[in-house]
Amino acid sequence: MTGNWLQDPIPALDAGMLAAARDRQRQLTKPPGSLGRLEEVGATLAAMQRTQQPSLERVRIVVFAADHGVTAEGVSAYPQAVTAEMVRNFARSGAAISVLAREWSAELEVVNVGTREPLEELPGVLNRRVGPGAANVVREPAMTPQQLVESLGAGREAAERAATAGAQLFIGGEMGIGNTTAAAAVGCALLGLPAADLAGPGTGLDAAGVARKIRVIDAALARRRPERPLAALMELGGFEIAALTGAYLRCGQLGLPVLVDGFIAAAAALAACRQRPELASWLFYAHQSAEPGHRLLLAALNAKPLLDLGMRLGEGSGAAVALPLLRAAAALHGRMATFTEAGVSTNP
Amino acid sequence: MTGNWLQDPIPALDAGMLAAARDRQRQLTKPPGSLGRLEEVGATLAAMQRTQQPSLERVRIVVFAADHGVTAEGVSAYPQAVTAEMVRNFARSGAAISVLAREWSAELEVVNVGTREPLEELPGVLNRRVGPGAANVVREPAMTPQQLVESLGAGREAAERAATAGAQLFIGGEMGIGNTTAAAAVGCALLGLPAADLAGPGTGLDAAGVARKIRVIDAALARRRPERPLAALMELGGFEIAALTGAYLRCGQLGLPVLVDGFIAAAAALAACRQRPELASWLFYAHQSAEPGHRLLLAALNAKPLLDLGMRLGEGSGAAVALPLLRAAAALHGRMATFTEAGVSTNP
Repeated sequence: MTGNWLQDPIPALDAGMLAAARDRQRQLTKPPGSLGRLEEVGATLAAMQRTQQPSLERVRIVVFAADHGVTAEGVSAYPQAVTAEMVRNFARSGAAISVLAREWSAELEVVNVGTREPLEELPGVLNRRVGPGAANVVREPAMTPQQLVESLGAGREAAERAATAGAQLFIGGEMGIGNTTAAAAVGCALLGLPAADLAGPGTGLDAAGVARKIRVIDAALARRRPERPLAALMELGGFEIAALTGAYLRCGQLGLPVLVDGFIAAAAALAACRQRPELASWLFYAHQSAEPGHRLLLAALNAKPLLDLGMRLGEGSGAAVALPLLRAAAALHGRMATFTEAGVSTNP
Repeated sequence: MTGNWLQDPIPALDAGMLAAARDRQRQLTKPPGSLGRLEEVGATLAAMQRTQQPSLERVRIVVFAADHGVTAEGVSAYPQAVTAEMVRNFARSGAAISVLAREWSAELEVVNVGTREPLEELPGVLNRRVGPGAANVVREPAMTPQQLVESLGAGREAAERAATAGAQLFIGGEMGIGNTTAAAAVGCALLGLPAADLAGPGTGLDAAGVARKIRVIDAALARRRPERPLAALMELGGFEIAALTGAYLRCGQLGLPVLVDGFIAAAAALAACRQRPELASWLFYAHQSAEPGHRLLLAALNAKPLLDLGMRLGEGSGAAVALPLLRAAAALHGRMATFTEAGVSTNP
């Protein structure tokens, strides 16, 4: 294994900048606290970017796609072919994340880390295929140690490309039929929970389907349920989930703020934060998804998401929908007048 | 009184377009329902605009400003002078709503419907001053019948200017030291509630201040508490609240969708919907504010706000922060590929 980069330092937020940013919030022309959660988001962005005029003009969205052998157990409402079909839909700008990226002028990159079949050349899609999908986790580890290193590395490289391109925020998304099963299994292993606590309808299972999914996840956990994050990803995860974990960790190392999407992204973030707890300072959480187990993952991350719109699509779509809230917080923090500048009376 | 325009018809949403829009949502390349509340928002916008490619590119934000004589009773954490000072801050682009309007490329108009003192000419500020602020509602009606007509008319004209300019969405905001007291009083009259149910800290009262505010509102309600909406506005409201009511009603008559802001806007929307229940089809609700009574107003309106970020600033700022959610819903509805277009397999 050549995952030594995982030990690179993750910087702490600049405490002086954060204190100055909170002080600035109290001087802006509004009652203190009246912008609610946007005040702390704005101050945090200022500390992350070390400027009282934070900006999120340049945003990089990376969607990692991979298949899952566990679909053979009947855990998804959709056929496995949809993973590759949706990668083509990303490339043709027809998917939700494509539309949102264009709407917000964010850069969208798609990384194929393991569709079952190799894909033709597609615009905007990078080929980093580390295998023909994760193995069926009921029977064997999701991936080999080498595949784990390569998946984490695919995420690392995506974070580095984003930073090199000048991105001020990183959003990770995923596409992979079967990956709510893998994410739930990873979450159960890390949190010591039974499958029933984290398994949900995913793309649209009925009650019988969810019951079946719970049995499948419990069978995988009976085979092996490592508590250590990288082992859990290798035994129960998937290439795209490990890539997200690698991307989040590298973003933290690079001081690049991250906006975490929904259920699967939260499982990847949990693995990343278990590996390196100091990463937590660099993560914002976009939304509470409709997938029931998401609540437990967010609680374990001590995360308070910004939105609760009943979304459950993946692709990074929830984070993309929440992006303007961060942009609003940054703009308000940097551009509102202070009481002194505006000549407005303060609370006597 | 010359308020006959209030009886002009408010069109119903096009039921055929709405059904077609909901059908389109089921054909887009995502599991049905996976965009959560954005699906119904997108379909509703399509029905409102009578197109399956709805757009919210052109948005008009109008902030109505006015003073309140009830500030003499000590109901606000800030001095009355702040109303005029903030109008100047709007004109110089230093306020939260100024920053957000610029960030989202929305047009911002400020209408002075009644600061205590006349204001000098200010860029972007229209003078429609109907009086030197609402009267002290503990002692006398907030306004005369003629002032009510003029306030409603100022709102009507703002809606008409927006529609004439091609606006696809109307956001109303307000600025007026003392206006959470007026809004709470109007809400109490319309809902038959005691002041304690709707009075809150506003811009930042402590517990003793809230207790005092409750006594003041109860005293005003003891003087007069009309159940009819226009009478409630006249007896207990304020010029900017009545202007918002007039603007919302005219937007409905013009078929111009509205995104309602927080506590004070909700009191104005409640008066408008009590006057013309069919207006409800044209209103979206932006956010749950931190002002405790907002929850009861939203419940009476059967409204489910999109955001809950603990905001309590007014100015239309909560609606402006929520605007991108509507834009996202519109873009997703109109621009995502269908399963057929993208060649993606559906749920078998």
